[in-house]
Amino acid sequence: MSPRGRRPAGEDTRAAIVAAAAAEFATSGYAGSSLRAIARRAGVDPRLVHHYFEGKSALFAEVMHVPVNPAAVIAQVMSGPPEATGANLLRAFLTVWDSPQAQPALVALVRTGLSSEELVDQLRGFVERDLIGQVIRKHPATKGLPAKERRVRAGLIATQMLGLVLARYIVRMPGIVESTSEELVAHLGPIVQGLLDPQFVTPGS
Amino acid sequence: MSPRGRRPAGEDTRAAIVAAAAAEFATSGYAGSSLRAIARRAGVDPRLVHHYFEGKSALFAEVMHVPVNPAAVIAQVMSGPPEATGANLLRAFLTVWDSPQAQPALVALVRTGLSSEELVDQLRGFVERDLIGQVIRKHPATKGLPAKERRVRAGLIATQMLGLVLARYIVRMPGIVESTSEELVAHLGPIVQGLLDPQFVTPGS
Repeated sequence: MSPRGRRPAGEDTRAAIVAAAAAEFATSGYAGSSLRAIARRAGVDPRLVHHYFEGKSALFAEVMHVPVNPAAVIAQVMSGPPEATGANLLRAFLTVWDSPQAQPALVALVRTGLSSEELVDQLRGFVERDLIGQVIRKHPATKGLPAKERRVRAGLIATQMLGLVLARYIVRMPGIVESTSEELVAHLGPIVQGLLDPQFVTPGS
Repeated sequence: MSPRGRRPAGEDTRAAIVAAAAAEFATSGYAGSSLRAIARRAGVDPRLVHHYFEGKSALFAEVMHVPVNPAAVIAQVMSGPPEATGANLLRAFLTVWDSPQAQPALVALVRTGLSSEELVDQLRGFVERDLIGQVIRKHPATKGLPAKERRVRAGLIATQMLGLVLARYIVRMPGIVESTSEELVAHLGPIVQGLLDPQFVTPGS
């Protein structure tokens, strides 16, 4: 509309918030960044951040160019029966990663992310707090556990997901690439479920 | 000894073989490289390659600056009882990765390797044929299985090892970093053993 072809003000504000979030995540890490600090950096009211983004994890996905709302995916997984959390988590994870819309951005994120200490810090914070952390905190069998026990289980579930990402999308191991997502859910779902179940006992506990 | 400070001939030959191997792996991939082709490229008799290196995997480790002979590690794991292969494989793997001599080279290899398509091809060939492939081919419960079944199991074991590498050494998930190697063997050993056991059935088989 304007002679210089300026975008509407809403688009500008949204872009300013995303740019401020990228800078804030880089400076303070994922865990150390608050929506308030991002709003301050963007020079906008914190309520505007909430207007455009559902929360910190949605903003992180946007900064990382990943067209998925991770909080919504986890919420959907956790709305299913507790005994199916392992399979449902893997199914949701594979659905996002196998989708042609998300896969290129995710593969690029992992490739570049792993070679940058700064980006690794952000990814760890995100996986710990808002991805697997959400599962561990909400699952009936794990939510009451001591903190160390929860960290170990979260780490072992992360091991499954990170291993799957490398084996299927980066290293491309033939047996994993040629498996359907449902075959992988059948193999790895029980393993993840076992890491959530109360019968699973970590040594020394 | 010589006025130009030349190294002895043996050192020169060894270095020429390593340089030729690096070039051959880069050109033909790990699976496509033969010791014969490496010898030809280095302009030496193939018997000289065998004199300096126990085999292709030892040469690969040398090219990648990893101070470990992978074939010897796998041979030692496979000399133990079959029902302890999962735990022994993880224990050997963690011993190498936790060692201050090998860890920096291995972490650097993964960091740079994952961002290079060419290096990923070499790593996949190596893991498939000489690392996990050896375990699957020699383990009594898996050595007679159809090729696809063996590939899937190898891929799922690779998923465990790759996930552990990322979670412990690259992303550094707190619960995995603070666990001792024996705690990790206790957690993940049974999972790897389960992927080797005959009771484990892949869907459709």
